[in-house]
Amino acid sequence: MGLVVQKYGGSSVSSAERIKRVAERIVATKKAGDDVVVVVSAMGDTTDELRDLANQVTPTPPGRELDMLLTAGERISMALLAMAIHSLGSQARSFTGSQAGVLTTSKHGKARIIDITPGRISAALSAGSIAIVAGFQGIAQDTKDITTLGRGGSDTTAVALAAALKADVCEIYTDVDGVYSADPRIVPTARHLAEVTYEEMLELAACGAKVLHLPSVEYARRNQIPVHVRSSYSDRPGTMVTGSIEDLPMEKAVIVGVAHDRSEGKITVVGVPDRPGVAARIFQAVADAEINLDMIVQNVSSADTFRTDVSFTLPKADAPAAMAALEQVQDELGFTHLIYDDNVGKLSLVGAGMRSQPGVSAKFFSALAKAGINIEIISTSEIRISVVVRSEDLDAAVHAVHEAFELSGDEEATVYAGTGR
Amino acid sequence: MGLVVQKYGGSSVSSAERIKRVAERIVATKKAGDDVVVVVSAMGDTTDELRDLANQVTPTPPGRELDMLLTAGERISMALLAMAIHSLGSQARSFTGSQAGVLTTSKHGKARIIDITPGRISAALSAGSIAIVAGFQGIAQDTKDITTLGRGGSDTTAVALAAALKADVCEIYTDVDGVYSADPRIVPTARHLAEVTYEEMLELAACGAKVLHLPSVEYARRNQIPVHVRSSYSDRPGTMVTGSIEDLPMEKAVIVGVAHDRSEGKITVVGVPDRPGVAARIFQAVADAEINLDMIVQNVSSADTFRTDVSFTLPKADAPAAMAALEQVQDELGFTHLIYDDNVGKLSLVGAGMRSQPGVSAKFFSALAKAGINIEIISTSEIRISVVVRSEDLDAAVHAVHEAFELSGDEEATVYAGTGR
Repeated sequence: MGLVVQKYGGSSVSSAERIKRVAERIVATKKAGDDVVVVVSAMGDTTDELRDLANQVTPTPPGRELDMLLTAGERISMALLAMAIHSLGSQARSFTGSQAGVLTTSKHGKARIIDITPGRISAALSAGSIAIVAGFQGIAQDTKDITTLGRGGSDTTAVALAAALKADVCEIYTDVDGVYSADPRIVPTARHLAEVTYEEMLELAACGAKVLHLPSVEYARRNQIPVHVRSSYSDRPGTMVTGSIEDLPMEKAVIVGVAHDRSEGKITVVGVPDRPGVAARIFQAVADAEINLDMIVQNVSSADTFRTDVSFTLPKADAPAAMAALEQVQDELGFTHLIYDDNVGKLSLVGAGMRSQPGVSAKFFSALAKAGINIEIISTSEIRISVVVRSEDLDAAVHAVHEAFELSGDEEATVYAGTGR
Repeated sequence: MGLVVQKYGGSSVSSAERIKRVAERIVATKKAGDDVVVVVSAMGDTTDELRDLANQVTPTPPGRELDMLLTAGERISMALLAMAIHSLGSQARSFTGSQAGVLTTSKHGKARIIDITPGRISAALSAGSIAIVAGFQGIAQDTKDITTLGRGGSDTTAVALAAALKADVCEIYTDVDGVYSADPRIVPTARHLAEVTYEEMLELAACGAKVLHLPSVEYARRNQIPVHVRSSYSDRPGTMVTGSIEDLPMEKAVIVGVAHDRSEGKITVVGVPDRPGVAARIFQAVADAEINLDMIVQNVSSADTFRTDVSFTLPKADAPAAMAALEQVQDELGFTHLIYDDNVGKLSLVGAGMRSQPGVSAKFFSALAKAGINIEIISTSEIRISVVVRSEDLDAAVHAVHEAFELSGDEEATVYAGTGR
């Protein structure tokens, strides 16, 4: 008998009907002989609705109280799910993050899991129950206040619980049946991936593939928890995230796919005096505002003016704060002005195969060139090449690269209706 | 500097606007120099909406999970209220029943408070914060599961917290400005009561006055906590519930008012063999179904048949279960049949003055007789006379008794809009 942790996202439990269907799947897993722990998100748009309610009261709710408010969402979905399982004749008990022993840092809205002490979960399993755990939430180890983990937090809860309980697998149920070689909404012939390594999944998640969030993949890799990304609307096998690129046999080290991302904007700092330390001061100012930069490019300095331009990308939501932080150091640093451009898109090619196959970069850039696409920023890792292009060129760029690397599958991808994750 | 516990019901916090208004009142109390602990119910109809959601999943939700679900309601209102106070520049921290140390029995949906260990509340007050506590909920002392207290539970939470924290007063804010000598919707000239004793309030609450629930008044009396029932829409003084009838000076021992109740039905057990122990068996069968009877009458036995009829009143909601329990013992007890009558109403006259003034009963029954009202059951206590009449006669009966005892005030009662409590 094994132990399976299953995670269901908000769209999988968006109504009483869907909750009942999810309950049937859970009970079937239990009846097949495994112990089951379920991590559940808030129903559908509940979290956004609660955020709206907070905004009606104040534009700047304190983090502690916002977390208290938002955690009501999973409380509702987990209790309903436990009821639905109960009505099918199986035992189920729901647990808040705090009851499940999810200990976090105290940074409200963006807490990190420090440890899980799942004593009550183990006890429920021993008593023959299915345990339902609220995703996305925990209790701060120092202040004992309720915290939330930020976007995608329920995935992290699931993987962390799987690690703490030494589960055999963590199944992430969503509205697509796994990871594809490209977004099937852009490339209908994108290939379904049966398996990817942790490292490749990390790159894909960091580059815009929305099927898994970065922290959950990091947690899975660190604890060697196999993560199975599956559809809650079908029984087809999904994508298994497991193993390291270091252990891949040569024939399995391939190019896995093309990710794209429209969530970032680009800031250009124009007329930066070209002397040591100025670039560092620019990035320090942005870091002090707790903003993470993504890709960076610095132009060649002008021989006439000894000035240069520095561009970087960052999440669009962080752009106003970054602009404000930079304006504060404008006099000190002496740059001439700032340009914000939110009409950019990022494309990334990912795969362990880059390490062994020569000529990947050449093929990549020549595909983009043939498609007439202008490149603004380039960055690479051992298993990834990323470029920033005009937003309107992004779909064509995805097509061009996907085709050049012959990533298409034999059949059209199945795209499920749904609101995404 | 004193300590005030304030409780706001669901209609007082039914929207973001109302929450902001309540926050202003709370901050004003704090600025006037008192420490403030606030107990809050779920917003408006939230609890009913959550119940509906549960019913969409299953008609018979397990109590543990239903309590988990319903407690999301106060979590939302208390967090929003803390945000609203924060936006007015004061500090506020919200606490669930569990965090506030509300320890209860484990009877889900009807838990009783065993003790309160308000360490975190005291710490928040010491730190200069206003403490917001979820009403209606607690944590079971033995199972550590989340519980709810049943209807009116937020009042009990407030009074119990006031007792545990040794507060100077517990203010219950509702949509009327206190207790009246009759329901102003029936008797527009009903008099506002500035003060009533615990015993009188207990009788009024037990007899249908909805402004306070019975368990909260019992808790207040046991712990000698003055309870001030006030309107959340005005600054008028409300009704102070305090003191015992034993300590009342003669001139203050008066008839305080007329309560009425349409929430009960009447069951008649017809043709009961008139032998010792049969009546006891009837009431035992009903008690075994965990149903509380209210008033009881047994007819004079027929000389011909040695059979009698036994009638009793009980909450309408409990009638089906009581009928089923009685049908199960019909063969054993040998009664002929059962009649259920839900077209009854109960009127009660309450006041410590009954103990000292002779002729109260005579005046009471003569007023009903003059109004041509037929009486079906009578019961009395030291400070109360209750009768069951036809439901359609109830308003006329209230008027007749209220007038006979000259209970009207000098001005028309102010009746506030609102959905009741």
